[in-house]
Amino acid sequence: MSSQPPLPLPPWLPPQLSQSQSPTLHALSSSLLPHLLAAISQIGASLRTSHHVALAGSANPFGDDQLNVDVAAENAVRAALAKCPLVVAASSEEDPEEKQVHQTADVTSSDERFSVAFDPLDGSSIIGANWSVGTILGIWKGDTALGKTPSKDQICSVLGVYGPRTTAIVAVRENPQDAGLCFELGLDDSGSSIELVRPDVKLSSPPYKTRYFAPANLRAAAESPAYASLIASFIKEKYTLRYSGGLVPDLGHILTKGHGVYISPVTQTSKAKLRKLYELFPVGLVVECAGGKAVDEDGRDVLEKGVEGCDERGGIIFGNTDEVEKVVKVLLG
Amino acid sequence: MSSQPPLPLPPWLPPQLSQSQSPTLHALSSSLLPHLLAAISQIGASLRTSHHVALAGSANPFGDDQLNVDVAAENAVRAALAKCPLVVAASSEEDPEEKQVHQTADVTSSDERFSVAFDPLDGSSIIGANWSVGTILGIWKGDTALGKTPSKDQICSVLGVYGPRTTAIVAVRENPQDAGLCFELGLDDSGSSIELVRPDVKLSSPPYKTRYFAPANLRAAAESPAYASLIASFIKEKYTLRYSGGLVPDLGHILTKGHGVYISPVTQTSKAKLRKLYELFPVGLVVECAGGKAVDEDGRDVLEKGVEGCDERGGIIFGNTDEVEKVVKVLLG
Repeated sequence: MSSQPPLPLPPWLPPQLSQSQSPTLHALSSSLLPHLLAAISQIGASLRTSHHVALAGSANPFGDDQLNVDVAAENAVRAALAKCPLVVAASSEEDPEEKQVHQTADVTSSDERFSVAFDPLDGSSIIGANWSVGTILGIWKGDTALGKTPSKDQICSVLGVYGPRTTAIVAVRENPQDAGLCFELGLDDSGSSIELVRPDVKLSSPPYKTRYFAPANLRAAAESPAYASLIASFIKEKYTLRYSGGLVPDLGHILTKGHGVYISPVTQTSKAKLRKLYELFPVGLVVECAGGKAVDEDGRDVLEKGVEGCDERGGIIFGNTDEVEKVVKVLLG
Repeated sequence: MSSQPPLPLPPWLPPQLSQSQSPTLHALSSSLLPHLLAAISQIGASLRTSHHVALAGSANPFGDDQLNVDVAAENAVRAALAKCPLVVAASSEEDPEEKQVHQTADVTSSDERFSVAFDPLDGSSIIGANWSVGTILGIWKGDTALGKTPSKDQICSVLGVYGPRTTAIVAVRENPQDAGLCFELGLDDSGSSIELVRPDVKLSSPPYKTRYFAPANLRAAAESPAYASLIASFIKEKYTLRYSGGLVPDLGHILTKGHGVYISPVTQTSKAKLRKLYELFPVGLVVECAGGKAVDEDGRDVLEKGVEGCDERGGIIFGNTDEVEKVVKVLLG
């Protein structure tokens, strides 16, 4: 039980969230979300002046080259988490071992304690070209994200999108049987202004005006006849190609257009690349809360099964439900 | 002959330009470039806060939907041109009729008078998704861009890139037989700071570490066996796909990586879409000054033949010279 008086709710919350009676959602909305959004504003502001995107002279434990902007983003999120007493544990793609942040197990109800798993700056390969990149944050109820069930325990995702402007996509779903809520916020560089831009982001239903596809790891099609045939069918059916290679902007495009399907397959010669904890789970929650579907390389709901370790990886197919089902049929038979 | 004392050169010029004795390049560097870069900073700053990208309730004369941000960008460039007395004429994708800006024909040498043709905000279809977009400016020697030879008379291109940061890619070539110079600047939102980030942008030579392709108008491959076979060969040879659908960021990616080939073919059922004056010519100059090659849908140097009217369109293939030649062979035989 918290000994503090409850914090006020921020003015930019969508009604569905501000009117909720849930202590968990109140704690999330009044404390954790504002801190995380402040970190996203700060990362956006620091990217504005990062004209020299350079290697920071190290690699993260996954062996990716680490950039100076990665380090700045990691530090901004860590500082935000340190300010939020409800966060008990955190791990990130840059420091992928879950560590204690605050020791609040004895003072706060487990409904108001959170763990955070995040990728501070996703899109290292395209930041040099000044393409949009993102931050991915998954928020879990309780003291750890490990050994849990994502559909049940990961109750919120926050994606920061750094492009011509800084935006945040937030998904919240307290119970797996709920539809969940996805909304978009507009941020500024000072962190002083947050605007509710789209209170209820939902993917469209067929028939679609324009259909989009985003084929990740397209080189895998060289060895996968199924993937090659899928690509050929998108071309034949005149889908529009949009593929930035940044997971966050690629998802953001689908949410903005209301249509799209993103495919990151796993084949024999092309191994799973995306991290479940830092990439697939948060993205999966956003897609489901926007009314779409996200499945893993076996066609199973990407939120069905959790991880025991921070470095588990997988494939993903996400987008409008009917499109995902069509892709699964072609790739998995 | 100008009656004004010569303006000082800005500190961010690369040596090749600041040491030039050419009156044309001096006028360009000291007056026109600073004004245009200020407009790019201003557009970048205005995009930061444009969380409601909306239709401005009109269409430009090409029939494209016009967004509020298009209008703001057009106004920013027009205001910059109005401040620069060396600009005698201008036309833009939003207002595609070449009109007089200043009447300086009697006071300034034709070597120090310029016409500007520009696309204020390229990438309308992706700005809503918060993907990187750009401004394209072509600068022509003399009183008009019409009826001229681009390779000879279009002496400078400036591309503004609005992503996580604001950058500008500048290409300058006074004489068609010169190699030309391409450099990258880092801007800030206030317009008070300009930094020379890459003084000499050059595409790589083979062998390449990673090879990239950007297939525009991929739907055309449904009816063009040659384009379909080209795509299949990129996949087979394991090129990496990067295609944002924004001409400026797509070019920027190639310049940053030092490798890539962009293909916007013209087929029987899929007409030429890109405007020569506002898109193809400025992009062509950047590519050539970076040591690459840019050809039209007939395989001819894109800068060889000018336009008589503002709305002429074409296809383009650009990137590393050897890659462009390979594509031309497949598409044109």
